[in-house]
Amino acid sequence: MLLHLQTWPEVEQYLQTCPGIILPIGSTEQHGPTGLIGTDAICAEAIAQGVGEETGAMVGPTIPVGMALHHTSFPGSISLRPTTLILVIRDYLVSLSRSGFRKFFFINGHGGNIATLKAAFSETYATLAELPVDGTDRVQCRLSNWFMGRGVYQLAKELYGDDEGSHATPSEVALTQFIYPEAIKTAPLSEAVNSGRIYGAADFRRRHPDGRMGSNPALANPEHGKRFYQVAVAETSAAYQAFLAEE
Amino acid sequence: MLLHLQTWPEVEQYLQTCPGIILPIGSTEQHGPTGLIGTDAICAEAIAQGVGEETGAMVGPTIPVGMALHHTSFPGSISLRPTTLILVIRDYLVSLSRSGFRKFFFINGHGGNIATLKAAFSETYATLAELPVDGTDRVQCRLSNWFMGRGVYQLAKELYGDDEGSHATPSEVALTQFIYPEAIKTAPLSEAVNSGRIYGAADFRRRHPDGRMGSNPALANPEHGKRFYQVAVAETSAAYQAFLAEE
Amino acid sequence: MLLHLQTWPEVEQYLQTCPGIILPIGSTEQHGPTGLIGTDAICAEAIAQGVGEETGAMVGPTIPVGMALHHTSFPGSISLRPTTLILVIRDYLVSLSRSGFRKFFFINGHGGNIATLKAAFSETYATLAELPVDGTDRVQCRLSNWFMGRGVYQLAKELYGDDEGSHATPSEVALTQFIYPEAIKTAPLSEAVNSGRIYGAADFRRRHPDGRMGSNPALANPEHGKRFYQVAVAETSAAYQAFLAEE
Amino acid sequence: MLLHLQTWPEVEQYLQTCPGIILPIGSTEQHGPTGLIGTDAICAEAIAQGVGEETGAMVGPTIPVGMALHHTSFPGSISLRPTTLILVIRDYLVSLSRSGFRKFFFINGHGGNIATLKAAFSETYATLAELPVDGTDRVQCRLSNWFMGRGVYQLAKELYGDDEGSHATPSEVALTQFIYPEAIKTAPLSEAVNSGRIYGAADFRRRHPDGRMGSNPALANPEHGKRFYQVAVAETSAAYQAFLAEE
Amino acid sequence: MLLHLQTWPEVEQYLQTCPGIILPIGSTEQHGPTGLIGTDAICAEAIAQGVGEETGAMVGPTIPVGMALHHTSFPGSISLRPTTLILVIRDYLVSLSRSGFRKFFFINGHGGNIATLKAAFSETYATLAELPVDGTDRVQCRLSNWFMGRGVYQLAKELYGDDEGSHATPSEVALTQFIYPEAIKTAPLSEAVNSGRIYGAADFRRRHPDGRMGSNPALANPEHGKRFYQVAVAETSAAYQAFLAEE
Amino acid sequence: MLLHLQTWPEVEQYLQTCPGIILPIGSTEQHGPTGLIGTDAICAEAIAQGVGEETGAMVGPTIPVGMALHHTSFPGSISLRPTTLILVIRDYLVSLSRSGFRKFFFINGHGGNIATLKAAFSETYATLAELPVDGTDRVQCRLSNWFMGRGVYQLAKELYGDDEGSHATPSEVALTQFIYPEAIKTAPLSEAVNSGRIYGAADFRRRHPDGRMGSNPALANPEHGKRFYQVAVAETSAAYQAFLAEE
Repeated sequence: MLLHLQTWPEVEQYLQTCPGIILPIGSTEQHGPTGLIGTDAICAEAIAQGVGEETGAMVGPTIPVGMALHHTSFPGSISLRPTTLILVIRDYLVSLSRSGFRKFFFINGHGGNIATLKAAFSETYATLAELPVDGTDRVQCRLSNWFMGRGVYQLAKELYGDDEGSHATPSEVALTQFIYPEAIKTAPLSEAVNSGRIYGAADFRRRHPDGRMGSNPALANPEHGKRFYQVAVAETSAAYQAFLAEE
Repeated sequence: MLLHLQTWPEVEQYLQTCPGIILPIGSTEQHGPTGLIGTDAICAEAIAQGVGEETGAMVGPTIPVGMALHHTSFPGSISLRPTTLILVIRDYLVSLSRSGFRKFFFINGHGGNIATLKAAFSETYATLAELPVDGTDRVQCRLSNWFMGRGVYQLAKELYGDDEGSHATPSEVALTQFIYPEAIKTAPLSEAVNSGRIYGAADFRRRHPDGRMGSNPALANPEHGKRFYQVAVAETSAAYQAFLAEE
Repeated sequence: MLLHLQTWPEVEQYLQTCPGIILPIGSTEQHGPTGLIGTDAICAEAIAQGVGEETGAMVGPTIPVGMALHHTSFPGSISLRPTTLILVIRDYLVSLSRSGFRKFFFINGHGGNIATLKAAFSETYATLAELPVDGTDRVQCRLSNWFMGRGVYQLAKELYGDDEGSHATPSEVALTQFIYPEAIKTAPLSEAVNSGRIYGAADFRRRHPDGRMGSNPALANPEHGKRFYQVAVAETSAAYQAFLAEE
Repeated sequence: MLLHLQTWPEVEQYLQTCPGIILPIGSTEQHGPTGLIGTDAICAEAIAQGVGEETGAMVGPTIPVGMALHHTSFPGSISLRPTTLILVIRDYLVSLSRSGFRKFFFINGHGGNIATLKAAFSETYATLAELPVDGTDRVQCRLSNWFMGRGVYQLAKELYGDDEGSHATPSEVALTQFIYPEAIKTAPLSEAVNSGRIYGAADFRRRHPDGRMGSNPALANPEHGKRFYQVAVAETSAAYQAFLAEE
Repeated sequence: MLLHLQTWPEVEQYLQTCPGIILPIGSTEQHGPTGLIGTDAICAEAIAQGVGEETGAMVGPTIPVGMALHHTSFPGSISLRPTTLILVIRDYLVSLSRSGFRKFFFINGHGGNIATLKAAFSETYATLAELPVDGTDRVQCRLSNWFMGRGVYQLAKELYGDDEGSHATPSEVALTQFIYPEAIKTAPLSEAVNSGRIYGAADFRRRHPDGRMGSNPALANPEHGKRFYQVAVAETSAAYQAFLAEE
Repeated sequence: MLLHLQTWPEVEQYLQTCPGIILPIGSTEQHGPTGLIGTDAICAEAIAQGVGEETGAMVGPTIPVGMALHHTSFPGSISLRPTTLILVIRDYLVSLSRSGFRKFFFINGHGGNIATLKAAFSETYATLAELPVDGTDRVQCRLSNWFMGRGVYQLAKELYGDDEGSHATPSEVALTQFIYPEAIKTAPLSEAVNSGRIYGAADFRRRHPDGRMGSNPALANPEHGKRFYQVAVAETSAAYQAFLAEE
């Protein structure tokens, strides 16, 4: 159930039986010579919609731009500063808490968002506890990184071994190929470097000249993408339902 | 050309001939008993993509949540505070200016965003001028509100007269019906009130109990929507090209 | 009734019959080779005091510096950033709401303030609704731009036609000449440019080298100024009283 | 020379011989049963204009609202938060530094502003040093509290002894009576309390029920006010000139 | 080498051969019925000083209060908001980068700090890159959580097994007992709950009524503490030296 | 009683009889060629602990870094911006007010902190008054600058006369020598300059090339330090007890 395709009375009715909502969050950043700039948002959105279909959950609008400052030396990358993203999350959750939502399940497509999202949850709990609104001190947030699920991880290992790398990975590229088969890109790829270290934007580009971190996205194909999709939807749906069931 | 479906080398190449980018911005807010919560984002995104096809412009990711604080007494509405939205715009434009973009054309679907966006442009020009990056003091932003274009205005007047109202209007509802025919909603609609005044969220709901402001969205249909789409894409494309051509 | 010339018990008494206050806001910015830097504040203050005399309204202190970032490449211009001005407005209204004021009528002398003021009102309503103070969720703000009133507009058209322009206009210059006849300035004026576009400060000065936007302030005289004053006070007084009467 | 009554070319010319500007700052706050709410702004402005006449200094617009949070339990008081006032000062000084001003002389009428102004100066020096503008790392600010000048202090002691108190003092009331003889207020005054301690707003009103701190403003008269004015203008003018002369 | 016990010429000399500095960061928060409120700061500081002795590194002042909002329903806990802590880190690193430091090694004693510190590093890299100071775009930060080192983890497992828990653990309590043998506390301890979940402060206290998360700190003793100290200093020293050696 | 060495139940018990807490605050900044960078924090902490022993007060963790922007042209100096320090103080006091503390006694070792701390107190009172927590509108803060106590002042005058100066003074250096006799530094000292003026960091270093302001720290010795310690602890203890006793 996509929030964007509901009316407010439909949301009001939904809230009578369920306080949960899924919020997909991605990033808009370079993904190497062949990966799409929207990769992280595309993946998070697709999986979130799949989970919404599977579980009947309300799915909010995708946050398309996250914390990707270290990618901003590559054209087309957009990033919020961490302090901005924290305010964005706070504003979303204050609004939705006033509506009556109490359980926020973030499906995240970008490793670089994790720290800031966790910081944002802490900041938001404190803000909500100060509001003159009943029950806002019981709000719960959960972060679900689809690419870190056990099944996804195993599949990536099985298909790509060490060539999975850690940025512009074949697994995420495969998933975007499954979703947008019309946007499959190719380019000659040299051996990718993986320094394992991320500092500022200029430093990132010095270490990883074409944007990849140790990955070989040429191994990706749409069929792989379909398998990643299915595994991710299944395990993320289970995680969402467990979150809802939790006291 | 959707930024999300490009690679960074493709963006780099685009920038060699064109410094322009289109940024769609909508809102996630109640649109009366039958309007979709995502109406403003859906419309802005569809028109932006149409303009992108028409003009070859790069189209960035849609900003789905804007300034809708006055709607937050209705379930499902999400709003950024104006100060947050200003920081978001600043962060987008700082990132994209580093890439080399210099002309930012916002296609906006929500009246409530206008003031904050204009404030954000002013704030951002000042921030960019302080950056140690060449040419950032020549950045230009333009705000294009599709629903205020001359052709769109005339069509709405012709089709609906005073029943167009000013929130949850038949024109925007028609456009969403054209885009999402599977999500057409119906509900009994009383005469809508139009106080013409917008203050805080609680006040808004007192004045406009079902969320509409003087509109009769029951007049909308998908065929109307198609006409609005065509008119809006045509006049917004012309506006974008004039903006690019301007010194 | 000037707030600055009252005692607190007098304010307390005023509040027993009227929750309204007028807040003049101007700007401190270049107004071309002959316009005063304080033009916008001088005009807003004079009209606000006239309205105060006419209607018995409490008139707060003039906010002399507004949002004029685009003028800051000319010496003597001062501007708040939009985010700063929003905080200033919030602080004023939080203070005065604690006193018991509920209806805030801003008499504005500067077009560049409009967007930020509207954003500030939205931000402030949300802040006030969170305060543990009764009735702050019913606060109302109204923006009255004296130079956009129907009568003022017609008079300017009648007296100056297209030479009114859009910055350093003869109408505002005339008004300052009426108020400060001792500070009438003259200088040779070339044909003024009016690009109609406002971006950053450096860009503004490139486009409008002497600061004017399409205006011929040499047409102004103090008698005109008196007429503008009278028309503006009359129509703004009516607007204030209608605002007070409104539920 | 009032900045508000100059044109930008006049300011440009002034800057060729003098980098100094006077910025008056007051407050809008209760001053007991007979003191004007605008007392601190009125006094600072009058003295600043006197110093301007005496020394030929440029005098900027008066900042009428300062840091008076502890007075906000009394109707009519307005205060900026300290963090807001710091941003206001920063914005003023960034603007004026771009113009070429380098020496900022604040004539202050309110004890409650002192700490925040000093903090603002420190914050601003750091901000200015980061700007890509030559010479902004040599900006100097000076705080001149007219009521703490040696001559003013002695005169107050001579005229009122301990009845000077520390808020709503006869010296400042006398000065406003000299400036606004038409706005002299009277009211029965009990013995004033002077706890000497200032905490939050509610606490302040509990300790000082009518707003005064140990003062007897009934001793004030316009003739005293004239003497305070003359002494203050003389000693503040000397201080300004010494500041200008200082390396 | 403790920064606090150096003079500025000594720091200047140190910087000629080494750009690295260690910054210990802890927290001030409840640690169950027997754990010290300063536990996390005490441990981080002691280990940092040990590493400083081992490696000759400069050791900055301990940041004693971190991100512990979820503990603030227990008396004596102090927390910064995440957005505040990000500004604190930014300010430290801007200051020290101006001095010439380029490699910042944070020895952290509190799991709750991790997300905010990582967000702070990202924010700070972007801020530093905008400063007009050479080399600030090459600054590197590293986070070293002493309690997550391999050797520490193995020792805790060996000594306590599952009774290590995840807050108010016997390992950290043992370390404080080694450092402050005069401050060993005892109290009757029931079986500890470990929900594994952390939301807001009120929720935390509902789930973990005495503050512990699944730990049995009664197993701690000073001799264990000494072993933890030695292991942690050894492995953290190695990590610091590897960080320095890294390009 | 050091907060860091207590458990939360011990703090809970303390609060049943006393709402007071001492918060030491120093700075991390250059203190001339022979003064320790930690001087201000070391002194504040030692005296605070002495007062804690004398009076039984709870002593919180030392804030080691304060407002020292003007010292940041010397290596090793760290400073918070004033706006950051205000947020830090606000966060500390919000946390501790939730615990039940109501009287905050800051023992300060650095003149540069005074203005920002006072501004922070004002900001915090306003924030606390808006919290939904009983009694937070009665919170009181007191600033106690050990080096400005009457006894300390007289002793410094007696021992050093004008050679006390105003930064890197022999009195504070003597106190650190008493506390850390192992860290006594010597260096050839020229005549110190004392401009008496503090502007930005670059300006400070131009005026005071070795960091001292008119002081001769070579006069210091540990025996003097002991006397300063005793006088400061005695008079600060009395001030704390008077503060507690005050309504």
